[in-house]
Amino acid sequence: MARKKKGLLIVVSGPAGVGKGTVNAALMQKHPEIRMSVSVTTRAPRPGEIEGVHYFFRTKEEFDRMIDEDAFLEYMHVFGMNYYGTPKAFVETERNKGNHVILEIDVQGAMKVKSRCPDAVLVFIAPPSLKVLKDRLVGRGTETQESIDVRTATALEELKKLPDYDYMVINDVVEEAVADMEAILSAELNRTARNQTLITKLTGGETI
Amino acid sequence: MARKKKGLLIVVSGPAGVGKGTVNAALMQKHPEIRMSVSVTTRAPRPGEIEGVHYFFRTKEEFDRMIDEDAFLEYMHVFGMNYYGTPKAFVETERNKGNHVILEIDVQGAMKVKSRCPDAVLVFIAPPSLKVLKDRLVGRGTETQESIDVRTATALEELKKLPDYDYMVINDVVEEAVADMEAILSAELNRTARNQTLITKLTGGETI
Repeated sequence: MARKKKGLLIVVSGPAGVGKGTVNAALMQKHPEIRMSVSVTTRAPRPGEIEGVHYFFRTKEEFDRMIDEDAFLEYMHVFGMNYYGTPKAFVETERNKGNHVILEIDVQGAMKVKSRCPDAVLVFIAPPSLKVLKDRLVGRGTETQESIDVRTATALEELKKLPDYDYMVINDVVEEAVADMEAILSAELNRTARNQTLITKLTGGETI
Repeated sequence: MARKKKGLLIVVSGPAGVGKGTVNAALMQKHPEIRMSVSVTTRAPRPGEIEGVHYFFRTKEEFDRMIDEDAFLEYMHVFGMNYYGTPKAFVETERNKGNHVILEIDVQGAMKVKSRCPDAVLVFIAPPSLKVLKDRLVGRGTETQESIDVRTATALEELKKLPDYDYMVINDVVEEAVADMEAILSAELNRTARNQTLITKLTGGETI
């Protein structure tokens, strides 16, 4: 159905090294109507980072004001120092235009978004096995043995949260994972629960 | 995910003239792993009808025995004369082989199946408008005006049951409706709720 309707909010989680970024980038390449959510942060921009593209950079005071104004879908402290948050406005504006918004976020954040946005679609990108994940982390050549052990242990804890997600996509072959994501988007758009206006028109004799 | 798992039971409803048969036939042409459920009936075979292909032909006594044996997913009387029913065994055998089974059935039957098989996927094939549906019925050239009026009125009543279905697929262009069906199948196979064994393996350190 190509009919214009509210875009989807797709929450994507998965362990470090699983290839979330690769899958999402490939998906967005094929679908210009998909946007990546831009987070708000209190940390300083790194060289090359662009306001509104990589992050919205805000002071701690501005961030606190946004919390008071209920401007976040979810937010969190990192290391007790910097704040990160998902601004509601960006997500809603894009969805109302009919664009889909992908929110790459950890398991804890995903659960917060689900409770605030029950119509969000939760997708967990999983590796074909923990061993494959570990091999990929080793293959990066940038991780210490300790970091790899910590990440693998964290991955296992995250995988245990899989049943809290709507869908799981195994990232074995990237193209297949992208096709799985495309199918999820297409199917979700055809859910009757997302088409109540359309159903009302149809039963009222209108053409949709 | 090409991994072997239990096939889906897809219940397909939609008003007469909407093109359910065309969509399902095109879908099965592309996917040999999809089977059409074969009904049991007490009516006599018509010329050319083959046992086990078009129907399983049974006597009324045999049908009653099947009811007693709880062998049906759903069954119904038609015109107080012939019985029609969906045999459980066929559906379960095919699903356990990893094949998907399509069950073309009316709204009432669909609800019975849903209550017996909560993991069934309910898809309603809808026309782009009631007018298009009526035009298609007229276009057949085989329906009387009275029959067209009755079918259109019935279609409206059926469309009102759309919210009881999981998905709606608009059959405007057949290829698009088929693509929508394919996406629904693919997405449903990736539902975490259908992958609990796989999740257990994954968190147990196995390759899936």
